Amino acid sequence: TENYRITLLPGDGIGPEIMAVAVDVLKAVGQQLEITFDFQEALIGGVAIDATGEPLPTASVEQCRASDAVLLAAIGGYKWDNLPRHQRPETGLLGLRAGLGLFANLRPATILPHLVDASSLKREVVEGVDIMVVRELTGGVYFGQPKGIFETETGEKRGVNTMAYTESEIDRIGRIGFETAQKRSGKLCSVDKANVLDVSQLWRDRITQLASEYPDVELSHLYVDNAAMQLVRWPKQFDTIVTGNLFGDILSDAAAMLTGSIGMLPSASLGESGPGVFEPVHGSAPDIAGQDKANPLAQVLSAAMMLRYGLDQPVAADKIEQAVLKVLDWGYRTGDIMSEGMKPVGCREMGEILQKAI
Amino acid sequence: TENYRITLLPGDGIGPEIMAVAVDVLKAVGQQLEITFDFQEALIGGVAIDATGEPLPTASVEQCRASDAVLLAAIGGYKWDNLPRHQRPETGLLGLRAGLGLFANLRPATILPHLVDASSLKREVVEGVDIMVVRELTGGVYFGQPKGIFETETGEKRGVNTMAYTESEIDRIGRIGFETAQKRSGKLCSVDKANVLDVSQLWRDRITQLASEYPDVELSHLYVDNAAMQLVRWPKQFDTIVTGNLFGDILSDAAAMLTGSIGMLPSASLGESGPGVFEPVHGSAPDIAGQDKANPLAQVLSAAMMLRYGLDQPVAADKIEQAVLKVLDWGYRTGDIMSEGMKPVGCREMGEILQKAI
Ligand SMILES: CC(C)[C@H](C(=O)O)[C@@H](O)C(=O)O
Ligand SMILES: CC(C)[C@H](C(=O)O)[C@@H](O)C(=O)O
Repeated sequence: TENYRITLLPGDGIGPEIMAVAVDVLKAVGQQLEITFDFQEALIGGVAIDATGEPLPTASVEQCRASDAVLLAAIGGYKWDNLPRHQRPETGLLGLRAGLGLFANLRPATILPHLVDASSLKREVVEGVDIMVVRELTGGVYFGQPKGIFETETGEKRGVNTMAYTESEIDRIGRIGFETAQKRSGKLCSVDKANVLDVSQLWRDRITQLASEYPDVELSHLYVDNAAMQLVRWPKQFDTIVTGNLFGDILSDAAAMLTGSIGMLPSASLGESGPGVFEPVHGSAPDIAGQDKANPLAQVLSAAMMLRYGLDQPVAADKIEQAVLKVLDWGYRTGDIMSEGMKPVGCREMGEILQKAI
Repeated sequence: TENYRITLLPGDGIGPEIMAVAVDVLKAVGQQLEITFDFQEALIGGVAIDATGEPLPTASVEQCRASDAVLLAAIGGYKWDNLPRHQRPETGLLGLRAGLGLFANLRPATILPHLVDASSLKREVVEGVDIMVVRELTGGVYFGQPKGIFETETGEKRGVNTMAYTESEIDRIGRIGFETAQKRSGKLCSVDKANVLDVSQLWRDRITQLASEYPDVELSHLYVDNAAMQLVRWPKQFDTIVTGNLFGDILSDAAAMLTGSIGMLPSASLGESGPGVFEPVHGSAPDIAGQDKANPLAQVLSAAMMLRYGLDQPVAADKIEQAVLKVLDWGYRTGDIMSEGMKPVGCREMGEILQKAI
């Protein structure tokens, strides 16, 4: 039997509820496949601020580093929105990405046949959409120096961030993009703003050069404004998208919302080596926290991504993904994905049904 | 009678064809209202590169400065895509914005009842959408210094752009946002990434302070990734959006595409004083250039925006907008907005019908 040390970061809002479901599902699948997990919780986000004054205590980072993979739920809430930047939940998340060197963020936007009607787009436009956004996660304008709010010569304030990428940073994420496309349909679209930005010009040059090493991948380029349009117009033209940190933030969220069911979407953040972090795309939903209304499926699918990309256990990952399809086949729905004729369930009950499905 | 000096910048691709239609429409409306126009053409974009080696000859800027308003069609094409940055058509456009101090870009995304079905979104989601994006146009990462491709200490290249705003830059565009919202439904949404970026933090602080001067405007804030999602999910929640240069580029294009008919959308770029530039949102469509297939309606509606925002001739603007509605009522459609049962027309014929409608 294989044993894995998993750090759990339940975080804020609905985090603990959906995490509990994912843990139960992991245990159930582990029992069948003789995989065991040592789960250990750590603090991040608002709960960490409340307990320690910091959104990411050093102890949490160290514990993550010492584990095989990290399962994160969600962070943030109104309560902590007006703290200074270094004390905000988001700063903890950025610190975790930097601290673990998680430069590659994989964000699938897939639409399940059961949920096509949840989309705001027409059925024929979204049916079969299956996009993977590969987003750079530790560079770009999120981390570039200099940054801050400075005083100008005339005495007024100037807010500054630096959007920057080095060749090696571009190559590193570019390769993940090409390799991801290889495992999928072989189509890669790189998104930048090379008609205006120097950093995008370098991005485009390097990605174009890399392409010669991946002759089986068909590479295209789009400007970010056009990419946003094309996602809305005809999302099925996309398979794998590779892009920088900020553009990836925006486009992956737009792509996720095309599906109409972001309560279903997981993500993976990976480094060169060391543990990855796996988390749902949705937020902490403080308005429904503690009410047993949350949809745990994105968290459960994040656990499946952890098995697949973090622990190299594809069979276990498949089992979880199949179980999710099964409960949808059976007609169970949490409030966010409810539709006529389906059976409404809460977060906990959804978890119990998932365990049966496994 | 009022007389206006108008600089025409037909530019590339379909530019000259659609510009010709707009000029005829302006003349027709001018005759009825005793307004006359001195039209003078100038070079920008690819045609300027071909003629002078530069995408924006000094003579063009001077001519624009000396006129009452500038009507621009579209720039760019494959032919000029691989020139060095300072010689690219887009650089001409950026130079025009900077040269005329056009800091405020108004981009309406409205859906006409005739064209609801052209949208990739469901009818009930887009019917009645009427959004105005107020985009900052001469600052942010488009113009921030330092920028360029530099060598790092380790000898690799690093591409750099600077995303920066001063307080006065934010206030200036913020006021346009509030004033625009006042003239519309009184709802303003400011979009930033204040949870990550210092420049956005300053943006949010200033916009929040400005709000006290506009007690009749209801201000909200969204992070840019969430704004992209909300545009897809339920665009009718938005009325006026105010945001920076890059976010405005992306969101205004996404909003435009929600309507499904970007061949219909005009825009206005305005400075403190001096002439504004009015242009369609769509590009130069080199693939259909010279084939009499282009949709001239966005260009014609840009002429209407010129009358309204640039020349303070709202009656003439109304007349043009009414004429556009009329030709759609009559069932005339260019290829891009064609649907069953409608009458297909080319660019020129659409122009002739418009003149009749006036
Ligand atoms: C919370 C925020 C810092 C974060 C980001 O911008 O990366 C989030 O939007 C995301 O996409 O994971
Ligand atoms: C052509 C390009 C420089 C321009 C921009 O990015 O501003 C265009 O996309 C626009 O939105 O007008």
